[in-house]
Amino acid sequence: MWSSSVKTGSELSISGITAKQLAKDFGTPTFFIDEADFRARALAWNDALKEAFGDKAGTVYYASKAFSCTEVARWIKDLGIGIDVSTGGEMAVALAGGIDPKKIEVHGNNKSIAEIEKAISVGVETIVIDSMYEIDRVATAAAKAGKVQRVLLRLTPGIEAHTHESIATAHEDVKFGFSIASGAAWVAITAVHKQSSLELRGFHAHIGSQIFGFESFEILAERFVTFLAKYRDEFKKELPELDLGGGYGIAYLESDVTVVPRDAMQALANAVKKHCAAFNLEVPTVSIEPGRAIVGPTMFTLYEVGTVKDVTLENGTHRRYISVDGGMSDNIRPSLYGAEYTTILANRTSSAAHTSSRLVGKHCETGDIIIREIDLPEDIVPGDLLAVPATGAYGRSMASNYNHVPRPSVVAVKDGKARVIVRRESIEDLLALDI
Amino acid sequence: MWSSSVKTGSELSISGITAKQLAKDFGTPTFFIDEADFRARALAWNDALKEAFGDKAGTVYYASKAFSCTEVARWIKDLGIGIDVSTGGEMAVALAGGIDPKKIEVHGNNKSIAEIEKAISVGVETIVIDSMYEIDRVATAAAKAGKVQRVLLRLTPGIEAHTHESIATAHEDVKFGFSIASGAAWVAITAVHKQSSLELRGFHAHIGSQIFGFESFEILAERFVTFLAKYRDEFKKELPELDLGGGYGIAYLESDVTVVPRDAMQALANAVKKHCAAFNLEVPTVSIEPGRAIVGPTMFTLYEVGTVKDVTLENGTHRRYISVDGGMSDNIRPSLYGAEYTTILANRTSSAAHTSSRLVGKHCETGDIIIREIDLPEDIVPGDLLAVPATGAYGRSMASNYNHVPRPSVVAVKDGKARVIVRRESIEDLLALDI
Repeated sequence: MWSSSVKTGSELSISGITAKQLAKDFGTPTFFIDEADFRARALAWNDALKEAFGDKAGTVYYASKAFSCTEVARWIKDLGIGIDVSTGGEMAVALAGGIDPKKIEVHGNNKSIAEIEKAISVGVETIVIDSMYEIDRVATAAAKAGKVQRVLLRLTPGIEAHTHESIATAHEDVKFGFSIASGAAWVAITAVHKQSSLELRGFHAHIGSQIFGFESFEILAERFVTFLAKYRDEFKKELPELDLGGGYGIAYLESDVTVVPRDAMQALANAVKKHCAAFNLEVPTVSIEPGRAIVGPTMFTLYEVGTVKDVTLENGTHRRYISVDGGMSDNIRPSLYGAEYTTILANRTSSAAHTSSRLVGKHCETGDIIIREIDLPEDIVPGDLLAVPATGAYGRSMASNYNHVPRPSVVAVKDGKARVIVRRESIEDLLALDI
Repeated sequence: MWSSSVKTGSELSISGITAKQLAKDFGTPTFFIDEADFRARALAWNDALKEAFGDKAGTVYYASKAFSCTEVARWIKDLGIGIDVSTGGEMAVALAGGIDPKKIEVHGNNKSIAEIEKAISVGVETIVIDSMYEIDRVATAAAKAGKVQRVLLRLTPGIEAHTHESIATAHEDVKFGFSIASGAAWVAITAVHKQSSLELRGFHAHIGSQIFGFESFEILAERFVTFLAKYRDEFKKELPELDLGGGYGIAYLESDVTVVPRDAMQALANAVKKHCAAFNLEVPTVSIEPGRAIVGPTMFTLYEVGTVKDVTLENGTHRRYISVDGGMSDNIRPSLYGAEYTTILANRTSSAAHTSSRLVGKHCETGDIIIREIDLPEDIVPGDLLAVPATGAYGRSMASNYNHVPRPSVVAVKDGKARVIVRRESIEDLLALDI
């Protein structure tokens, strides 16, 4: 839930810097990212993949949609892992960070022709093709550039993975990919084979988010290996790659568990190897795409309390509304997905009794709620600092300027030093697009 | 649903300019705003307020959170109506547009001290106070500036207004305002009276969104007038102002009705006057805050189709996924609120049969859905243009850069001419905050 350099015993600190000092130096609200923790988590997935798959380990592609900026792209480059991008904007960030295009995988259900041409011109390793139209578009762009582009086909394997359960179905009602069950995948393969500017390397799937059990991934492995065998039987050759996506769960609350990379990769490798053996197939190289599982726990958001208000509920009890200086513009997940977070008093200790509270933002909207229900010390007052952990994924990346609220800065902390890696928007920034 | 200058008969056009021409000149996705329609709607509310309340008509404050930019603020200035702002950012836009601070009303449940001081220093007409802390903060800032600040108190009158029904309760479980039922409102009044730098002008409430019936507003009028009478009985003087907020509904679908300003204001005036007569109170000046009801129907979003894909559902039927070049980053309302929209083929006519379709965006997320279920011509292909009406409110204003997708431009159309009023973000803009 908290990153490794955070201490929450009394006053919250990260890499030895207290919350009070951070607020003084950088203002609030601010996202603080624990650089060492980010690097450690990225490497843990990389090590786990290598340990489990050996020479069949593919690439750990960091799913940059969770959070990316130029400095994080530099870290990815430095770590030597890959990055997956799903738009031209995400690709621009990866390239700005100096990532070798050979480490970039390109996603997206509706890539523009400009995005495809740009990806091919810079020489990305792999494009994951998502529709019949895209087979033609990528083939045409590659031919125009005089290249043979490596591609994967995104398949929908018919698995609905949820946090605590999975449903294996024959069909998937989603916009992504080619269905195995309907035969669409087979049609796509045939179409790719006809294009001399495309090299089909294998298949990709992404089965969900915040998945804790390994069962869905084991079913995915079985379905994909079965499909690889079918391909081998039909075309008398084997495809060398699978990308089994991301979706590994992280802890948002104290009571949440978190996925251990080594366990996840071991389970995946066991399943892939077992089914390959059964079909007498060579084990393909396997890549994965953790995003949230790397960046999620590495950040917390620091807010300052602005007001505290008690409201009498229908049943006669009270609810305390604690308003902070951010809200749904920097964390839309509670209102968008009903996502749950926790928070702690960050600038001091309190031995006060706890009272039923709701953490809300400063937006002009009733639904601007960060935490719907939490017990917090009843002596919290304006000026106190509250830290919300695990806001690294889909926090800043989905941030808006709703109510013309400037988006917060992102500050990286490492070895007792803190520095801005994404600066806070100013009022001038808010007006910059206006004519 | 569509603004007045839009024609949808064959090819869609606005003020005589075809969708094809707009896409060619401005790209997609783009928000097109019908300037004449915006002005007409704003004036319709202003006229209706004046007609219904006569010399007791207060101000129509445009709720800028729905959508604001410098050019729209210029229109507001030009129309002579007011604007309500709920943050320093929204105030900056209003001032950039040249709006007289005497036409600005300041909202917000958690205004920062900097925001309060700025509002007082520029000389805003009214600050709507939302908490006990704020009474002190506004009083202190006003005293420091040597001014007496006009204030309203935001009250929670215990009305839950919904689209088609209202619930009148004793309590409200919201972050905003002072509860009448709990006595909090009374405590706040007493506190304001003690501050010589504050002039209490009256009360404010905002009871909900997308409200079609007038009943909730009539209940609000009754509760507020009753409270004004209680105030008069206690303090032997009358308060001169009420601001009864916004929340008037608009049509998103063909089948939706829309609120007629004259009807709404007549119903409100009748209720206010009736209850004032019963209490022998002078009728206060009444202000309102339409946001969505002005800007909502004035804009449509123009998208280009990128891919079309048929998916087989569990029951054997098909769903067509039509992907466009925008999505949840420019319209979060379908995923955030389950909001419903419609769309039409904008660049040509089609006599093809209709097929069950889902309109989705280009984001790397399954929930990136603009319209969940709609029958559309089965001959729609990539390159076609789709127009989604009524995206003026909470579309561009809640837009994000999720997946590093640049936010669309806003183009104003009037008298056969189109011009950019908010420019499209570039890749450089996306990287501008990165260090």
